[in-house]
Parts: sequence; structure tokens; C-alpha cells
Amino acid sequence: MELPKKVFINEVVLRDGLQLEKKIVSLNEKKSLFDQLTKANITMIEFGSFVHPKLVPQMANSGDLYSDLSKEKQNANLVALVPNLKGTEKAHDYGVERVNFVFSASNTHNLQNVHKSTEDSLKELARIQDFCSKQDITLYVTIATAFGCPFEGEVSPNRVKSLVEEVSSLNVEMITLADTTGMANPYQVYNLMKEVRSLYSNQQFGLHFHNTRGMGLSNILAGIQAGINSYDTALGGLGGCPFAPGATGNVCTEDVVHMLHSMGIDTGIRLEELLVASALLNKIVEHDTPSYILKAGTFDRKYPIPDSVSAQ
Amino acid sequence: MELPKKVFINEVVLRDGLQLEKKIVSLNEKKSLFDQLTKANITMIEFGSFVHPKLVPQMANSGDLYSDLSKEKQNANLVALVPNLKGTEKAHDYGVERVNFVFSASNTHNLQNVHKSTEDSLKELARIQDFCSKQDITLYVTIATAFGCPFEGEVSPNRVKSLVEEVSSLNVEMITLADTTGMANPYQVYNLMKEVRSLYSNQQFGLHFHNTRGMGLSNILAGIQAGINSYDTALGGLGGCPFAPGATGNVCTEDVVHMLHSMGIDTGIRLEELLVASALLNKIVEHDTPSYILKAGTFDRKYPIPDSVSAQ
Repeated sequence: MELPKKVFINEVVLRDGLQLEKKIVSLNEKKSLFDQLTKANITMIEFGSFVHPKLVPQMANSGDLYSDLSKEKQNANLVALVPNLKGTEKAHDYGVERVNFVFSASNTHNLQNVHKSTEDSLKELARIQDFCSKQDITLYVTIATAFGCPFEGEVSPNRVKSLVEEVSSLNVEMITLADTTGMANPYQVYNLMKEVRSLYSNQQFGLHFHNTRGMGLSNILAGIQAGINSYDTALGGLGGCPFAPGATGNVCTEDVVHMLHSMGIDTGIRLEELLVASALLNKIVEHDTPSYILKAGTFDRKYPIPDSVSAQ
Repeated sequence: MELPKKVFINEVVLRDGLQLEKKIVSLNEKKSLFDQLTKANITMIEFGSFVHPKLVPQMANSGDLYSDLSKEKQNANLVALVPNLKGTEKAHDYGVERVNFVFSASNTHNLQNVHKSTEDSLKELARIQDFCSKQDITLYVTIATAFGCPFEGEVSPNRVKSLVEEVSSLNVEMITLADTTGMANPYQVYNLMKEVRSLYSNQQFGLHFHNTRGMGLSNILAGIQAGINSYDTALGGLGGCPFAPGATGNVCTEDVVHMLHSMGIDTGIRLEELLVASALLNKIVEHDTPSYILKAGTFDRKYPIPDSVSAQ
């Protein structure tokens, strides 16, 4: 098993993690989370999104959050999700320098999510790319439902490949394939990523998994074996799934970092400080998260030898 | 990624899954669970253990359970855990034909668990092997804490290999390496299993993982890649960890079976019936389990297209 020396984490708790939370998280709470994440040496953070505030109220303060965060020099790259050109322009108004445009491989999901066909989203992407290159904004693209759609079911690898080809031709910084509702399995991930990497060898790729069916870490393990070294993860595994009540959300940052470190892979992240952030997150959202490591501690945690044994 | 055609599941919920439960599960409840497990085509079940009833009250009815189950012809192989010769003899008194002797690679853990040094457990194993071969009992051996000890920390691969060598020389049916408190990572699993398989190529090996740190499925994926095709799993992921309150237990049968099936690997198990068993388990133990698939449904679950979309 060949492993990379380093894997990069893009922390998405402030966006994908929080967006389904009922309690609206305040600017100050988001800032305190952000500060603790950077203390843990997280260097890439999707901090919010520029979508209609009525659709995702939790993200309504994204512009203000960016203004606050950018007052001080940050070691982390700040990325905003944008669903369209309007959102991109709004992000630019706040001075945002990195945006992540998301559309779905599944037409039905895209219609539901951004009220556009996939084809129309691709046209929107061309306009966004044009705007970003003129404004010197770094453009990332996420292809959602790349491993399956909760409405359509299977999404064919050929469809994903042809979308990748089209997006790749626009010279975007990175293409992230997202398993939006946790349908991917490791074999599928390995095969698709091996193929797109060999087809588009000059393109940077990332992966975004949800742990809906418990396969998040396994999918990352498969992704790593296919040569992908960049992953979206969310502190505490926050995120949920709008379709499966009680199901877990994004793959959990501290669980991913813990697995990678235990395998000898560097992430540059300080796990101890990350666990402080995760405990803070519990307080802010006022409920437990699916984090394993926050509950169980790291693999090298040792327990005192019981008296009955040490006496022998 | 080369995958096996078939993987075998040894269901341990009736033993490892239940042993830490506070509510004593009745004979009838255990039987109803067993019946549903066999309805799901589970063919190997660790149904109980012959340990001192004061130490593990949940297992006190193991002999009676076996007597009840063996009244009818079962399609499943029934295995009893035994910690010593006395337990093996007791199992034999009830007519048990398959026993799984467990000892720990970590001396401290073995002292804590069975009040013997690892060396003394190996001597006990020789006596058990002698007894089993005379009584025509099939003997399985589990080496616990093979990937780490909650007291000692790291357990060296060399120690595990030398224990495997000693056990293997006794011609036992299978040697299962157990990650008793969920400390293993996929890289460690892959490397150790690749090595023991090549060193002892005539020996059958199994793996037993706990999902304490969320790496259970990843460890199975790594085990499969190292050529191991037999896994202990527990319905609902029941089991807990005596050292980490709130931490999850054994790797969850339905989550494992779901992952394997989604990757195109056969288990012979009917997942739908397994989920019925898992729902029954929830009722019996009177609490939720960490099962992902029971909550989220299988990966191919489709949702109705929302009206807003289908109208377009």
C-alpha cells in the first residue's frame, strides 16, 4: 500500500457543516470556531456561501464574517461557496478572493438545488470563470452527486468524466468530486479517480465525502490509493442529510486527520487543537456530533493499569 | 484494487455485542435474534461464552442457549468463546462443537482479562488443543490486542508474529487477530496481514475490529487488500468499550455487509433481513445502536423528486 507523504484538508464545517443547523450561529461564534481552526493549523477553510439568505439563513452573515476575518492577516485560505454569477459578484463585493462554484452531475439534483439544469449551470460556470479571471479570483469547482443522486440513483462515470472534461478546459484551480448524500463506495471511488486522474493529468482533483453510510473514511482511503491528496472534511462530522433523519453528515475532520496521522501521513494539522475546536463546536451547536475521536481519544491513548493487575 | 469474490462474516453480537449491555438479555430474546440472523443467511455465529457467570452475567445462559438452538438443525455454525480449559470442558458438556479460545498479545491485557500471563495462556491453549482434538471439537483462536493495548500502548508486530507462529503450529482452524479496543489503522492492518499471510501461508486468518475510532470499515478494506476474507462483526455495531464511555463497539455487521455488497463482493447474506434483525436488536437492548445503514438506508435508496423540480 503506497501512501502519500502529505494530504491536504479543506475544512467545510462553517459552510456545509452548519448550513442545516437549526440554531443560527452568530458571527462571534463562527469567528471563535475559525480562530480555533487556524490555531490547529488548518490552512484552507470554506467559511460560508453567497446564496439567497432566505434559502440558507445560516449563511446570511457570510459577507460580514469575511469582512471580520480579513481584517487580520490569516494563514488560512478563505473560500466561499457560490451557486451562480450573482453570488460570485456579491462575494467579490466583500473582497473574497477564492470561490467554489458547485453544480450537480445529476440534472434532477441540480434543478432541486439551484433551480437550473446541469447544462445551464455549465453556462453559468463559463460566465463565472470569465468574471473570476478578470477580477483575479481563484476558482474552484465542485461537481456534486458525482457518485450517485438521491433522486436519480446511479450517476454514470461517463457523465462525470464528460463534465470533468468540460470544467477542466476552463483552467480552474481544482475540481472536487462530491458524494453529496453519502452513496459512494471505496471501489467506485478508486476506479473513477484513477481514471479521471489519468485522463486529465494536469488537473488538480479533490474529494468531498459524506459519512451517511459510514464509508467516509474508507472512501478517503480509496481516494488516497487512487492518488488524490485533497479532501473536504467538516469538524465534528457535522452536516446531517436532509433526506435521512438521524444520519450523519460530512466526513469528520478530526477522525480523518487522526486516521491519516496514525498511518504516518502528514496533514500539517495539530490534532490536539482540532479537538479543542470540536469541543467548542459541540457547545456552539448545543448538541453532540458524530466525532469518534472526540469521544474515544486518539489511538495512542493509554489507560492506567487496574490495581488487580499491577499487584500481580 | 483487486477484490475477492466472497467474504465471510462471523456474527458476534450475541457474545461480544451483548456482553457489556446492562439489561440481561433473556434466552428467548437471544433466540429470536439468532433466528432472524439465520433468516438473513448468517452462517457463522459466536453465540456466547463459557466464562465465570459472575464475571460476565450476560453470558450465564450460554449453555442453555446452545441446548435450545441445537434442538433444531441449524444452517449456521455455532461457536462459543472459551477463556480456558475449564470453559472448554463446560462447553463440551453442553455438546458445543466449535470453540474460540481468546488470549491477548499484551501481557498486561491478558492479566486483566483472564488473570494469566500470555505465556500461561499459551500453555492453556496446548491443553485445550489436546482436549479438542480428542473430543472432535473445532478450535479457533483469537489473539486479542494484536494491534495495540489500552494499557501498554503499541504491541510490536514481532510479538504478534511469534504468537501466530506458536498458535499456528497447533493446527487450529483459524487464527483471528483482534483489535480489541479499536486502535488499529488501515496501513498497520495491511502490513501485518500481508506479512503473516506470506509467513504462514497454510494458516487461515480472520480479523476482528472495533469501531472505537471510526476506522472499522477502513481496516476491513485494508484487510481485504491484504488477502483476508473472514471478519468478525456485530449486528448494530453493539459492544461499546469499557475504557471509552460513549465510544462505539464492534464494527457493525450491516454496515460491513452493505459496503461489501456495494463494492460487488458477495457475503451470502440477505441485507434486508439483517436490517430486520438490527431493528429487533434495538428493541431488545432498549436503545439505539451505532448502525449507519439502519438509519440511512442502503446506498441505492431513492427519494421522490420534490414537486418543485418535477413541475419544471
